[in-house]
Amino acid sequence: MTSWNKYFKSKRVLITGGLGFIGSNLARVLVEAGAKVTILDSLIPQYGGSLHNISKIKKQIKVYRADIREDHKLPRFVRGQDYLFNLAGQTSHWDSMTDPAADLDINCRAQLSILEACRKHNPKIRIVFASTRQIYGRPDHLPVKETHPLRPVDINGINKVAGESFHLLYAKIHGMNTCALRLTNTIGPGMRIKDARQTFVGVWIRDILKGKRFEVWGGDQKRDFTYVDDAVEAFLLAATHPEARGVVYNLGGPAVVTLRELADALVELNGSGGYQVRQFPKERAKIDIGDYYADYNLIKRKLGWRPKTNLKSALIQTLEYYRTELNHYM
Amino acid sequence: MTSWNKYFKSKRVLITGGLGFIGSNLARVLVEAGAKVTILDSLIPQYGGSLHNISKIKKQIKVYRADIREDHKLPRFVRGQDYLFNLAGQTSHWDSMTDPAADLDINCRAQLSILEACRKHNPKIRIVFASTRQIYGRPDHLPVKETHPLRPVDINGINKVAGESFHLLYAKIHGMNTCALRLTNTIGPGMRIKDARQTFVGVWIRDILKGKRFEVWGGDQKRDFTYVDDAVEAFLLAATHPEARGVVYNLGGPAVVTLRELADALVELNGSGGYQVRQFPKERAKIDIGDYYADYNLIKRKLGWRPKTNLKSALIQTLEYYRTELNHYM
Repeated sequence: MTSWNKYFKSKRVLITGGLGFIGSNLARVLVEAGAKVTILDSLIPQYGGSLHNISKIKKQIKVYRADIREDHKLPRFVRGQDYLFNLAGQTSHWDSMTDPAADLDINCRAQLSILEACRKHNPKIRIVFASTRQIYGRPDHLPVKETHPLRPVDINGINKVAGESFHLLYAKIHGMNTCALRLTNTIGPGMRIKDARQTFVGVWIRDILKGKRFEVWGGDQKRDFTYVDDAVEAFLLAATHPEARGVVYNLGGPAVVTLRELADALVELNGSGGYQVRQFPKERAKIDIGDYYADYNLIKRKLGWRPKTNLKSALIQTLEYYRTELNHYM
Repeated sequence: MTSWNKYFKSKRVLITGGLGFIGSNLARVLVEAGAKVTILDSLIPQYGGSLHNISKIKKQIKVYRADIREDHKLPRFVRGQDYLFNLAGQTSHWDSMTDPAADLDINCRAQLSILEACRKHNPKIRIVFASTRQIYGRPDHLPVKETHPLRPVDINGINKVAGESFHLLYAKIHGMNTCALRLTNTIGPGMRIKDARQTFVGVWIRDILKGKRFEVWGGDQKRDFTYVDDAVEAFLLAATHPEARGVVYNLGGPAVVTLRELADALVELNGSGGYQVRQFPKERAKIDIGDYYADYNLIKRKLGWRPKTNLKSALIQTLEYYRTELNHYM
């Protein structure tokens, strides 16, 4: 990773969802770069936040337990910040179908509240929003470019479209410095492994390390995976590059694999274990997006980003982390 | 208009926003068809609802003053209904920029609440949602088909995308009988004329009838106009046609005119008056969509709808109505 000191030294940075997977990795790099980091996280047990994620930097950052749905608290948090990495979100597609109102309040309504708080109290702040490939729905063609139609297949996708659109609109209409990244599957230390609410790879890792056969649903779906350090780099680039203002970029992975290939790689790298292939559950098939992998040429060309960590290293580093830290995430 | 008795006689019909322009015209036709109509309307002064709109049918319908944002009241309203015409909305693009939270709560959040109330308490209900051409943003090409990308240029458009998407998703995932119509400019008796919150044609009509020169902003923009009776027919067709389930259709007008041509026609048909052309205000130009007119072939082919009232008749009938009723709308 390039040195980020020249951009972030002594800068004030707010990270919503900062105890989560990507947020906490971002916080670590920002602390290394000399930034003054404030984290806002709801620590809702079903979501991605974990205090263990920031255990090594907890003395160098400020952490507030607050929910972005609490509108009235937002002005106080955004005032005086130079950067906002806006990562707080409800990530489970399935939960968005069973509790659509919560998904809407977090992924849509609170996003507008955050932007309004910034517009009124800190219009110069630079904002990077964590969007998702889920908003494309079932791709018409692969790889998927940013211009692909948005046809979300679940409540989560609909609300994320709105959340992302608000961010881009605030650049266009209010001249604010906002941009968004459409993340694909991100993996690495700090991801939720208790269940599949954040990524199915989490439960695969958990099961294989506990000596349990993990379940592969379907198996032929193609996917790409970004290692968390690469995702973090994309957030930092997007926050600092002048080209990024008002733009949305896909992130992607260095390779495209089927879930079965990923499962095989995981078993091989772990040195033991196995999995069973299970038919994709009928209820969930309705909100499945089929094959997906991103075309990330736009961010490569414009901001110079590319995923540097190959899938093998990503899996090795992830396995290594959870081999010792497993209990903190159960 | 065809006879709707065979579909609606003794049927229970709920209309949200039923005191508004299209809702009240729909209520009138449904009463004529023998339906048991219940209206839900917030009567917020800045919105489209007016008790005068239903003065002739008030004894044959039930009217409740309630706001669709009051989630807890929704189950009681949707239970036992055969049809829901879901027309309550915040329609002002400009207001959506100055009070984005209200627009979100009405056009996005409350829509999800309505659908959840139906799913839990009346999953067989047939629902038609009033969507808008605003969600396309600035068209890439004309006329605009339903497959045109959705790139809303304001908060209202973003929230309407979400509101419409929820409706279509509930058909797909939950098997509900929902559909949506993307309305273009609708004109006719009952429209708001106090200001331009619903349509600019309203203030043109008001001014010309008061003997005041009306203002045309820009003038070269192309638009299509649906007469309200035709819009009502589309709602009734969409509610009753089996093909409509889970589908969204554009409505359109019988002709495409520039605003200047529309202004000239209005002056001519009124027999007096005039207008002044004004540069499109800079602040508002940011959320302007340029030229727009719809391709309505899908609904024509699938449901047999077409706009029957030509623009001249539409304007004559509208002028005639407000010539006597003006005071009730000021």
